[in-house]
Amino acid sequence: MTKYVYDFAEGGRDLKDLLGGKGGNLAEMARLGLPVPPGFTITTDACRAFLRTGRAPYGLDDEIELHLERLEERAGRRFGDPADPLLVSVRSGAKFSMPGMMETILDVGLTDATVAGLAARTGDERFAQDCYRRLIQMYGRTVCGIPGDAFTGDSVERHKAIFREYTGHDFPQDPREQLDTAIRAVFTSWNSERAVLYRRQERIPSNLGTAVNVVAMVFGNLGADSGTGVAFTRDPATGERGVYGDYLANAQGEDVVAGIRNTMPLQDLEQRDKASYDELMSIMATLEEHYKDLCDIEFTIERGKLWMLQTRVGKRTAAAAFVIASQLVDEGLIDLDEALTRVTGTQLAQLMFPTFDFTGGPRRIGTGVAASPGAAVGVAVFDSKRAAEVAADGTPVILVRRETNPDDLPGMIAAQGILTSRGGKTSHAAVVARGMGKTCVCGATLDVELNEGDLVSIDGTAGAVYLGAVPVQPSPVVRYFEGELAPDADPLVRAVDRLLTHADKRRRLSVRANADTAADAARARRFGAQGIGLCRTEHMFLGARRTLVERLILARTAEQREAALAALLPLQRDDFTALLREMAGLPVTIRLIDPPLHEFLPPLEELAVRVARAEERGEDPGHDRDLLDAVHRLHEDNPMLGLRGVRLGLVIPGLFAMQVRAIAEAAARVPGSRAEIMVPLVGAVQELETVRAEAQRLLAEIGVAARIGTMIEVPRAALTAGEIARAADFFSFGTNDLTQMGWGFSRDDVEGAFFRQYFELGIFGVSPFESIDRDGVGRLIRIAVAEGRTAHPGLHIGVCGEHGGDPDSVHFFHEVGLDYVSCSPFRVPVARLEAGRAAVEATGSDSR
Amino acid sequence: MTKYVYDFAEGGRDLKDLLGGKGGNLAEMARLGLPVPPGFTITTDACRAFLRTGRAPYGLDDEIELHLERLEERAGRRFGDPADPLLVSVRSGAKFSMPGMMETILDVGLTDATVAGLAARTGDERFAQDCYRRLIQMYGRTVCGIPGDAFTGDSVERHKAIFREYTGHDFPQDPREQLDTAIRAVFTSWNSERAVLYRRQERIPSNLGTAVNVVAMVFGNLGADSGTGVAFTRDPATGERGVYGDYLANAQGEDVVAGIRNTMPLQDLEQRDKASYDELMSIMATLEEHYKDLCDIEFTIERGKLWMLQTRVGKRTAAAAFVIASQLVDEGLIDLDEALTRVTGTQLAQLMFPTFDFTGGPRRIGTGVAASPGAAVGVAVFDSKRAAEVAADGTPVILVRRETNPDDLPGMIAAQGILTSRGGKTSHAAVVARGMGKTCVCGATLDVELNEGDLVSIDGTAGAVYLGAVPVQPSPVVRYFEGELAPDADPLVRAVDRLLTHADKRRRLSVRANADTAADAARARRFGAQGIGLCRTEHMFLGARRTLVERLILARTAEQREAALAALLPLQRDDFTALLREMAGLPVTIRLIDPPLHEFLPPLEELAVRVARAEERGEDPGHDRDLLDAVHRLHEDNPMLGLRGVRLGLVIPGLFAMQVRAIAEAAARVPGSRAEIMVPLVGAVQELETVRAEAQRLLAEIGVAARIGTMIEVPRAALTAGEIARAADFFSFGTNDLTQMGWGFSRDDVEGAFFRQYFELGIFGVSPFESIDRDGVGRLIRIAVAEGRTAHPGLHIGVCGEHGGDPDSVHFFHEVGLDYVSCSPFRVPVARLEAGRAAVEATGSDSR
Repeated sequence: MTKYVYDFAEGGRDLKDLLGGKGGNLAEMARLGLPVPPGFTITTDACRAFLRTGRAPYGLDDEIELHLERLEERAGRRFGDPADPLLVSVRSGAKFSMPGMMETILDVGLTDATVAGLAARTGDERFAQDCYRRLIQMYGRTVCGIPGDAFTGDSVERHKAIFREYTGHDFPQDPREQLDTAIRAVFTSWNSERAVLYRRQERIPSNLGTAVNVVAMVFGNLGADSGTGVAFTRDPATGERGVYGDYLANAQGEDVVAGIRNTMPLQDLEQRDKASYDELMSIMATLEEHYKDLCDIEFTIERGKLWMLQTRVGKRTAAAAFVIASQLVDEGLIDLDEALTRVTGTQLAQLMFPTFDFTGGPRRIGTGVAASPGAAVGVAVFDSKRAAEVAADGTPVILVRRETNPDDLPGMIAAQGILTSRGGKTSHAAVVARGMGKTCVCGATLDVELNEGDLVSIDGTAGAVYLGAVPVQPSPVVRYFEGELAPDADPLVRAVDRLLTHADKRRRLSVRANADTAADAARARRFGAQGIGLCRTEHMFLGARRTLVERLILARTAEQREAALAALLPLQRDDFTALLREMAGLPVTIRLIDPPLHEFLPPLEELAVRVARAEERGEDPGHDRDLLDAVHRLHEDNPMLGLRGVRLGLVIPGLFAMQVRAIAEAAARVPGSRAEIMVPLVGAVQELETVRAEAQRLLAEIGVAARIGTMIEVPRAALTAGEIARAADFFSFGTNDLTQMGWGFSRDDVEGAFFRQYFELGIFGVSPFESIDRDGVGRLIRIAVAEGRTAHPGLHIGVCGEHGGDPDSVHFFHEVGLDYVSCSPFRVPVARLEAGRAAVEATGSDSR
Repeated sequence: MTKYVYDFAEGGRDLKDLLGGKGGNLAEMARLGLPVPPGFTITTDACRAFLRTGRAPYGLDDEIELHLERLEERAGRRFGDPADPLLVSVRSGAKFSMPGMMETILDVGLTDATVAGLAARTGDERFAQDCYRRLIQMYGRTVCGIPGDAFTGDSVERHKAIFREYTGHDFPQDPREQLDTAIRAVFTSWNSERAVLYRRQERIPSNLGTAVNVVAMVFGNLGADSGTGVAFTRDPATGERGVYGDYLANAQGEDVVAGIRNTMPLQDLEQRDKASYDELMSIMATLEEHYKDLCDIEFTIERGKLWMLQTRVGKRTAAAAFVIASQLVDEGLIDLDEALTRVTGTQLAQLMFPTFDFTGGPRRIGTGVAASPGAAVGVAVFDSKRAAEVAADGTPVILVRRETNPDDLPGMIAAQGILTSRGGKTSHAAVVARGMGKTCVCGATLDVELNEGDLVSIDGTAGAVYLGAVPVQPSPVVRYFEGELAPDADPLVRAVDRLLTHADKRRRLSVRANADTAADAARARRFGAQGIGLCRTEHMFLGARRTLVERLILARTAEQREAALAALLPLQRDDFTALLREMAGLPVTIRLIDPPLHEFLPPLEELAVRVARAEERGEDPGHDRDLLDAVHRLHEDNPMLGLRGVRLGLVIPGLFAMQVRAIAEAAARVPGSRAEIMVPLVGAVQELETVRAEAQRLLAEIGVAARIGTMIEVPRAALTAGEIARAADFFSFGTNDLTQMGWGFSRDDVEGAFFRQYFELGIFGVSPFESIDRDGVGRLIRIAVAEGRTAHPGLHIGVCGEHGGDPDSVHFFHEVGLDYVSCSPFRVPVARLEAGRAAVEATGSDSR
């Protein structure tokens, strides 16, 4: 039978899937002998079963009973005991942190009968009444859906009356009933609107469910010798060792996170309560030693006794992640391989965002806590809903609030940055913004009054606020890549250089860039690209050259067609020459033209309306009429599934030949050039064979050697890769089309239409256009790699879809054994880092 | 090393792939001891190698030399011997018969030096000169491309001069050079324009190549005791035993087939040359006994000596195929299983075409040979090119010619029927028309003169010609299916009934129909459908109901949307009630709405132009403006890959629920109904789970049970079928979409655009929309069947794409283990027959 409840002594952080982050880490601390209040965790399995069926799974109630008995034993109090009642908190805790998104209920177990016992134990009647009142309110809101602000007045009797009024029954007096309904309410809160929104934003799968932690209550609000705090084991912004935290005397934990009351620096606790302070420092050292990483913690002191309520590997800024990983190597806590696993490509991408350029001496109007780094400019808006509306028009917005709470999430998502006047690094605004990679300044004092619509700039790295739009400048990491900063310019650049260098040493995947121009290619090379994986030749048909393509399309005779192609040839040859020159010594994969030709003509509706209007006015539509005829002739109901790619090459005489000739003649001009010719949209080996034969004839004629390969982007190409490999020197997965055709939806048409719904239903955790769909599209890739290599052992295989720069996807491409990934120039460092991480992870799992 | 040449003694009909039909059967006859002139066959391997590289494969020349020596030995003459030269014919012969499409060269080996030897041997100087003249002309045309009509005059010297004039060199005097170049010319003729066209029409793969037969010449034109003929071993139109053939005294074989000279009935040979006639009758009996089927033969008598030049299992009309198969069973030559392999679904489909209704007493204007059955009406056109032009406008055409030759192929393809004034059942027109399933009357004498444009009706079953358009009537086979004719009404209906009954006994696949209306369902049931495999509910949204769909689309509030759905509910319920009533006791699979909603609105361009014109005129576009807004809002660049199928159901609240409710309420009204609910376009199990959960709630509420399953039509659905099967009671492959997405082309957009090119390049032998693509799309089907069944052992699996009624595809679906196929009502008998044949073939190959 499935085990649904784990005592803290039974769990550990390895069981996060089952126990959630909070439950796993509480168990870990308990096993380290740290002072954790007794408690147990109800698994995510139980939550999922509950959400599926609407009732607790069979056996859960009995298991809870059993563990409650053990808890009573360990706590030395009994649940419902009028003399000295055990009270518990019921807390959510998912695998991935979702701060404040789900429910927590404190003081469960308080009833008319037990409230006196609590008063007796604490010697504080008012405190006991206050706890009871809070329970009725929290329980009423969470379990029964009574609006939070419905509870007015401050007597228990008044709260009970309000409860009765809303629910039609009395506040439950059976502690076990309170516990069971509270647990169910926490389960249910997994699907609350704000939790769903947060998960979508954070790409957390919606089918995980939350664990529930039932923990004996400890009280930080029993007077001056009690209190509560949060802390980091080192500075989460820079990685420096020291004491970083906030403490609030005579308060419950929620008060700190909410940022409502101003906290004191943790250092000051040493003078108030040296014993607790020293114990805390020692515990923090133990945790760092054990987790070998920066941890954050929550603790409560109840009348001089320290209790650890939570720990986890601490969130940090992207820059701190790199710096800390490098520091931990210096301190001998971890090696470079381990350091690579501590940073992510997503963080590196964040570090490549630009920052403010202060040379203009912008007007600084305030200072606050540097809560989440970056530079953001926008108009001030003071309401979350309004912020979302303003941003919907494309106007950049800075959301300005006293403090934020989970209801502000839509506004935070819509905004460029968040500015608050209350709270610190651990406030809701700070934690959520860091999670999103959004710029945030907290607890700022301004020397002018802002009005809605004022342009404001916030610097989340320095904690500064400026009036007006401050110009932005490239990030130091980018300047290092561009060669403008030395690798030891500052600790961040040093850490990035060190970790990327190690990633380059470890990775097996090589990294190329998608670039269509010499300028893009040059940048890609500076960013570490080892070649061009995709040059889209159709981009060379735009602009002024569009008229040449028009001539090609409108050609009525072979002579007109050949003339149009002949005019394009030298232009293409010059483009390729510049590109090959820039990448001399490195491979450059040039894809023959892919899109349907009507993409180069004006849209059907526009032309039809222009012609109709001219006719109504009695005018001659002239050239528009010819164009409309051509558009009608070429019109396709589904151009994505129409005359494009290799089909164009087979149907329009001379088109591919012109391109191949341009490539070959360019290659002949550039010493050390390594051009590769890529045929798009192949679905059958005969297509490739036909194009290949003609290309080889032309290459031989011009006396140039070039590899000839194909995109694998049509499902059938993957399914018959064993055949196709016989005619290909290389494969390059076009994962955009493969995703479109594998799922049967076009990116342009459906992302707006139903993806939102699909995220909410949990059909996707992430858009399959962002991160490769391993089960479906990924299976096609596995088939093609395996069968392509069997048929053609030397086959070179890469990917050039947008997935080539996506961290998760890079890991997948490593796993399935590709030779390279290709992505946009700015993603090249990301891909290098992730390819290194993938290799290290694979080694790790091999040696386990 | 590959063996490229087979002596007749080495081959046999099992080697048709390699030796072609003619070569294989010549070898078979040689092994039966029948009088075949000595010869050898050059394989299709050699042809393919030649076509690929442009030169003879290594070793071929030596092999030919060796076999030529053996041939000389057996013939008792030497190639190039001036005294008594060996002459050979060089004949094409592909795996599948392509009558007259490729080249043949006779009398190879005649030179200035040997022509005298031939004259001496035959004692006929004029004959020898005539042969030489013919060789120069045939060789000139075939090998050197000299137009056939360039050769005027009738002296050898004149022909040699013309040859020199066109080629710039003398007619080759080396017999071996003649032979080698002739062989190459035959190879090359595989890709002649008419051969390519014929293959496309007949669905013969373009990559097979032809074999070449080199055979010692025998002469039917050496006087009155010589001649040539063709014959069938029984009547190819009815299957009756008897003597069916044509004989032409003092002629070469080509003269008979060309239909230029009028032949005598074969019976008359008995009086001219009883010995040869008796030997021929005995040989025909041997062949029928050996092949256990109707054979056709070609023979030549050279001065009283009978030579067999060709045999093969004879082509026959569709009706004869059924009747003969049944007769052969009666005669004890074959059993019913074998009889099933002698007929095809394609033939059965032909028999279901309508025939003329003569009750109006149409004006019969002529009688001819019933060369290819059917009833055709059209305007008379006398030229093939013109026929193709007229038909291109959609006008039905009867091609009227004195006789046809391979150049007439485009016109024959374009025409409804063919009418000739010369030739018989074995003429070019007759053979080609029968192959195409086109109506044909040959050798007709008319009592009025036809003019181009006259409306004419021809009856290929009776050999009659009528002036004007004769009304057509249903075929007797259809009347039998409809219950209007008894199963023993005539020999054809009896044979069809007998073979279909046997097919039903043998087949494992059950056969359902695609039907959207009660009338279609009723017909399908009469035709033997065992259920409805696909009812497309969107067809119920058309016509007068379109305005309701418009209301649904234009709804701005939930109330408006619900009102539009509520108005549709009773209409859908009535549709389903009628359908379920018609199919009581049998399963009816109803697919929830699939197409994008904008399909129910007018096209974008039409609306935009209407609105623009109204505005130009200063008028208010009114409702058109609202519709245009809606069309813009719903517009998709690729609607095939857009918001359709299950996506619609998940995005538009209440849409699927309305349909499920209508199905459930209808099912509740009809006793014995077996409704099944099918969800379209599922790509991920979560989609199906979501729809299934809602549908099950509704079914439970109404108290009806129904299976819930899904289409497998998106590649990802096939790739994750193991997951999807957990939430499905059945799978139904939507092979149209699976083909579109698997290949990445949309049927509507590409068939015109590049399929023709693709047939010519051999990328397809058949359109993958007609016959399932086994390697690509078929692989997805295999994966889904295997993994679906593993995950869900009771899973019911069928197919409801148009492939369900395609003979080849039915065999594939049998092989991969589907439970049923579903096709249009008229294809149901075809699918029943082919499913039976597939089962018999599978047993055959098992027991081998």
